[in-house]
Amino acid sequence: MNKYYNTLKKKIQNRELRIAIAGMGYVGLPLAKTIADAEYRDIIGLDIDLDKIKKINNGMSVINTLEVSDLENLLASGFRATSDFSLLDQADALVICVPTPLNQYKEPDLSYIVSTVEMASKFLSKGVFLSLESTTWPGTTEEVIAKILENAGFSIGKDLFLGYSPEREDPGRSDYTTATIPKIISGQTNQCLHIAESFYGSFINEVVRVSNPKTAELVKLLENIQRSVNIGLMNEMKMIADKMNINIFEVIEAAASKPFGFTKYLPGPGVGGHCIPVDPFYLTWKAKEFNFHTKFIELAGEINDGMPNYIIQRITSILNNYKKAISGSKLLILGLSYKKNISDLRESPNLEILQELITLGAEVDYSDPFFENIPPLRKFNFNMKSQSLNKDSIASYDLVILLTDHDTFDYELIKKYSKHIVDTRGIFKLDKTTTYA
Amino acid sequence: MNKYYNTLKKKIQNRELRIAIAGMGYVGLPLAKTIADAEYRDIIGLDIDLDKIKKINNGMSVINTLEVSDLENLLASGFRATSDFSLLDQADALVICVPTPLNQYKEPDLSYIVSTVEMASKFLSKGVFLSLESTTWPGTTEEVIAKILENAGFSIGKDLFLGYSPEREDPGRSDYTTATIPKIISGQTNQCLHIAESFYGSFINEVVRVSNPKTAELVKLLENIQRSVNIGLMNEMKMIADKMNINIFEVIEAAASKPFGFTKYLPGPGVGGHCIPVDPFYLTWKAKEFNFHTKFIELAGEINDGMPNYIIQRITSILNNYKKAISGSKLLILGLSYKKNISDLRESPNLEILQELITLGAEVDYSDPFFENIPPLRKFNFNMKSQSLNKDSIASYDLVILLTDHDTFDYELIKKYSKHIVDTRGIFKLDKTTTYA
Repeated sequence: MNKYYNTLKKKIQNRELRIAIAGMGYVGLPLAKTIADAEYRDIIGLDIDLDKIKKINNGMSVINTLEVSDLENLLASGFRATSDFSLLDQADALVICVPTPLNQYKEPDLSYIVSTVEMASKFLSKGVFLSLESTTWPGTTEEVIAKILENAGFSIGKDLFLGYSPEREDPGRSDYTTATIPKIISGQTNQCLHIAESFYGSFINEVVRVSNPKTAELVKLLENIQRSVNIGLMNEMKMIADKMNINIFEVIEAAASKPFGFTKYLPGPGVGGHCIPVDPFYLTWKAKEFNFHTKFIELAGEINDGMPNYIIQRITSILNNYKKAISGSKLLILGLSYKKNISDLRESPNLEILQELITLGAEVDYSDPFFENIPPLRKFNFNMKSQSLNKDSIASYDLVILLTDHDTFDYELIKKYSKHIVDTRGIFKLDKTTTYA
Repeated sequence: MNKYYNTLKKKIQNRELRIAIAGMGYVGLPLAKTIADAEYRDIIGLDIDLDKIKKINNGMSVINTLEVSDLENLLASGFRATSDFSLLDQADALVICVPTPLNQYKEPDLSYIVSTVEMASKFLSKGVFLSLESTTWPGTTEEVIAKILENAGFSIGKDLFLGYSPEREDPGRSDYTTATIPKIISGQTNQCLHIAESFYGSFINEVVRVSNPKTAELVKLLENIQRSVNIGLMNEMKMIADKMNINIFEVIEAAASKPFGFTKYLPGPGVGGHCIPVDPFYLTWKAKEFNFHTKFIELAGEINDGMPNYIIQRITSILNNYKKAISGSKLLILGLSYKKNISDLRESPNLEILQELITLGAEVDYSDPFFENIPPLRKFNFNMKSQSLNKDSIASYDLVILLTDHDTFDYELIKKYSKHIVDTRGIFKLDKTTTYA
């Protein structure tokens, strides 16, 4: 065991480790809180978004899954956000939680990871532990990260310890927290793994070791691939059930009564968020290097990406029964977030549906308690305000389209005064004026 | 409520119902036991297989999931098997548990259901309850069964009560029994549903009502479709993991540490049994009537049906490393059943692998504690005996191929003396002489 290894172990034990977290979003902020909860008192948060840094340091919420009181406690513990990477020369550990999006051709965009590691490698001192948490293709840690660090003069497993430990955050979930979700850990070498285990084990209840980083990278992808495929399957089953005049929500609920062998997934207007529409294609991309085509991922993508179009078709067909076209109809969309009870628009299929209805000439409004208005987005720029729901406003629409079933909607009121409801979530009972889509 | 309805309800209440069960297999026999356990004392089992009837009436086991002692108790309660359909004139209830196979073009073969109902309709008296339990396409009960019965002069919901209640048997499972697995029930009319609820509720702990028979038919299919798709997904993931030199079993086990959002399914040499390779295609077939192509089912079928060929490829490649071809190599297959710890060869992909290895010129043996020899089968006719495993016998093979991981195999012995193991189940630790496939 070398001196760097021993020093890190001792600093972890004494909670003297100086920790930097790169990426102050849905992963990095709750992670900072969890680490601070374990009595670490020297934590900084790195980000390139100056506005976000300012907000965090002023105790203002930047993600809706971290309570302001939690942020205040975090700041009280000494935590600060900064854009100054030169501070990394003081760090004993760097945890990277930056996003890994896809470009518009569904190809991995590792630029945030790469630029973070390149920048960090200029300042990091010898003896540091570096852990990547971003979701990525199997081989990234060993083929990309390790190379950058080696080119910068580090010797992995000797004067720098490198691990991969995928984040498993599920925004909006209350039964598990960062500390209580078991954490997959891996290391480039045995010593790297031991450091990763000491580090994560000091603030996470249960760590699960795997053989190497590429295994850990595939674990994370598999979790989201399975989810994407199962949602895709339920979306396909919804479409055939619609044709057969069978209530797919009733079918799924009844199937879920089987105490083994069936897991409930629900169909919807598509998939959204930073994980399910994105992560699986990291494997698709990497697999091509091996002349392998990931057919389930592609099919799930095809079905899930096609759902907004299916919803539009259903809307067209229902309006047609009233001798109306989409163009000129008054439509109300309920719910913009990609899933219920959170204020997250990333990759939300609802925005595609909204845009398409506008393009087709509908007079569309929306109502979403989480969005008073719609912020400017990469793909879309809506200038709209959330409508409040009451008897008269509801009754004024030709169709009310439930896309995301926030618990705070008054479903009784909506049911009572809507002319016709298009329900993509199976919330309302089926009758003459309610259609599932 | 008419007199027939009231009479049935009273007979159920008093356990005076005379019950006939058609199909004395994996579903019908455990069902007879469960009904007898609820103190019904007038049960007959109908089958067309005279040899099977004789065995059952002599207390000899015909399926390995019903203990001989249970069969003896059943017979002691007065139960008898018979081929005499004319006895149906005395029956108050008929439960149909006959098989619904696919033909070689993966098209539904309802002939067992149809001939049972046609034959029964000649003898059944008015006021009877008829329940179908066979897995089938949505619409079978209402479009096929009801028509046969109406053509025979019955009026459904008036003088005959018709329901569909899918079997949910899982052979080999010990934590749940026929009585404790919740049972989906449905009826052609409201009165049919009420009778179905009274009937099944009298011997099943929990019944789950759904709106109509086609919903119940789709529930059952969805359960097995999800299983087929998830196994197919894991098989595809295994193939890409093999190429990336990642241990897929380690990946799946680690993913299963996530306390939500991931369900463990395992890859293998293909899928077998009477359900998973068969049932999903019932929906595929029916969907075409609606110009709908069930892509997930087709893809799962493609991947799962292709696994035996993949195993053969892996065997070829491993032998090649030893400068050997399949032709002339001495190979040992471990396990023939389609799943562990049961003696069931139906649709077992292992038999395809065995046949292909023989065709390619290998000297193949097998070992399976459940099959001293291989009975003549519809597709295959092997004249082989199970080999006993010991140091010398194991060491004599070029490759030992684990296809089904029965608990009774001595894995330590096998590992110690095998030249090289091909492991399709992730039982052995990976090393130079063990390859996953």
